[in-house]
Amino acid sequence: MSKQNPFDQKKNAILEGINSLEPDLSPKGSIDHLCLPIMDLINSHKDMVTTSSCSGRISVFVEGTKSVSDDETKTGGKGLGGRWLYVSHEQDKVLNWIDTLREDEIEFESVEDTGDEFDNSIRYILYKYEPFILHVKCRDIKSASKLFNVAMSCGFRESGIGSNNTVAIRINIKLDVPVGLLDEKNKDRLIFFVSKRYISILDKLTVSKFIENKKKMDELYNKIDKEIISVPLEDESTKNQEVKETKEERRERKRKEGLERQRKLQSQE
Amino acid sequence: MSKQNPFDQKKNAILEGINSLEPDLSPKGSIDHLCLPIMDLINSHKDMVTTSSCSGRISVFVEGTKSVSDDETKTGGKGLGGRWLYVSHEQDKVLNWIDTLREDEIEFESVEDTGDEFDNSIRYILYKYEPFILHVKCRDIKSASKLFNVAMSCGFRESGIGSNNTVAIRINIKLDVPVGLLDEKNKDRLIFFVSKRYISILDKLTVSKFIENKKKMDELYNKIDKEIISVPLEDESTKNQEVKETKEERRERKRKEGLERQRKLQSQE
Repeated sequence: MSKQNPFDQKKNAILEGINSLEPDLSPKGSIDHLCLPIMDLINSHKDMVTTSSCSGRISVFVEGTKSVSDDETKTGGKGLGGRWLYVSHEQDKVLNWIDTLREDEIEFESVEDTGDEFDNSIRYILYKYEPFILHVKCRDIKSASKLFNVAMSCGFRESGIGSNNTVAIRINIKLDVPVGLLDEKNKDRLIFFVSKRYISILDKLTVSKFIENKKKMDELYNKIDKEIISVPLEDESTKNQEVKETKEERRERKRKEGLERQRKLQSQE
Repeated sequence: MSKQNPFDQKKNAILEGINSLEPDLSPKGSIDHLCLPIMDLINSHKDMVTTSSCSGRISVFVEGTKSVSDDETKTGGKGLGGRWLYVSHEQDKVLNWIDTLREDEIEFESVEDTGDEFDNSIRYILYKYEPFILHVKCRDIKSASKLFNVAMSCGFRESGIGSNNTVAIRINIKLDVPVGLLDEKNKDRLIFFVSKRYISILDKLTVSKFIENKKKMDELYNKIDKEIISVPLEDESTKNQEVKETKEERRERKRKEGLERQRKLQSQE
């Protein structure tokens, strides 16, 4: 048996995990189907492998306890003891999510003034939209830089290269809205300090973020394809491996593979 | 005259700009005084120079026109034709900012249902808190990686290395809240679809973000000092330059220089 270098070993192990139908380690347990085409595209490059991804999501949750220690405040995360009210990665599961809550546990526009001081013990209800994010481990700084530059040029302006040539591809289309708080006297009760109508405005904005996000993902896919995958091959080793396929044939094959995996995943869900 | 290498040339030019009292190219025209200590600390390292910074801010604005082309939507930025309603980098200038608006141009909780479809022509009023961000150009990938790792270990989890060994130091303590829209019939009129009380809750949360942000900046300052600046010197060239000062002396000098520059800036404002 020939000995693989560490990057190839790691890549093979990761691809095995992606291709298996076993649950992965994420809370949801599977890859978001919208990520599959771009993941397949990137993984078809010998110097890159995707290590984690999220296609974008709406989440609504009650914050956990915030005090890490007496003089440290930490806000914005679900944290310890937090509680999910709603999470979805699907654009068509955004509107009217609030109706999934029990009517007797929620109340709208009913918060008294919390005073001028910020009360650290309040546990807020946060409504978030988080866009697509993708981590890609690259063989070397050269391939990492290439991927980083393509991502930046498509508007993924919060991208960056991290340890071990891993590129984080990030974009800033977010919503981060405090919409209510937990009733400290009755922990089953959720007090929204906005109206139900405002929540429905947020929902519509979230749908528009899903749409914008999907467009940016498509743009990124096309640019990675054009500038990294379907380029004249540089060295002999890749030439031998890939010369049988034309650019168009390869693109079509990658597209079909992605769609096929999407179908499999969706039929499972 | 001895010829400088390109990094040192660039660094000297940048430092000249920072140290001059002329307005810089940012909208505000000057460096946020809270950034000065950490900038001075980083710039005291021979392999690093800060290239841009923001200490964190509240901003409220009417979005500009969003349609870049017929089928492209862009949301969330001030954009072309947008209008600032309020911007401040000061924690004590957050509460009651809304009273700076003319009373006859604003209206609260008065939006009719905008229908189920998302209307692309609506120009929203966005309320944001954006945290500290800092860009640091480093001499090589080794020094960039060192700075990146320290930032990540302090919780600046959205940091990354970009082109030319420039490290972007970023943290995710944000607010990004649509609070109203522009009346299309009367462009001087701002329609808030939340209550004034809700705005004041947001303001208090923003103050808490300013406080959390400052704590994270201090943590970062201390860790950069401990793990990058005040470490045993590695090579002869730096040894000759810095051996006359002890760690404590240098830290104290840097702290004083930062405070002095803060004072100068504040007396100008």
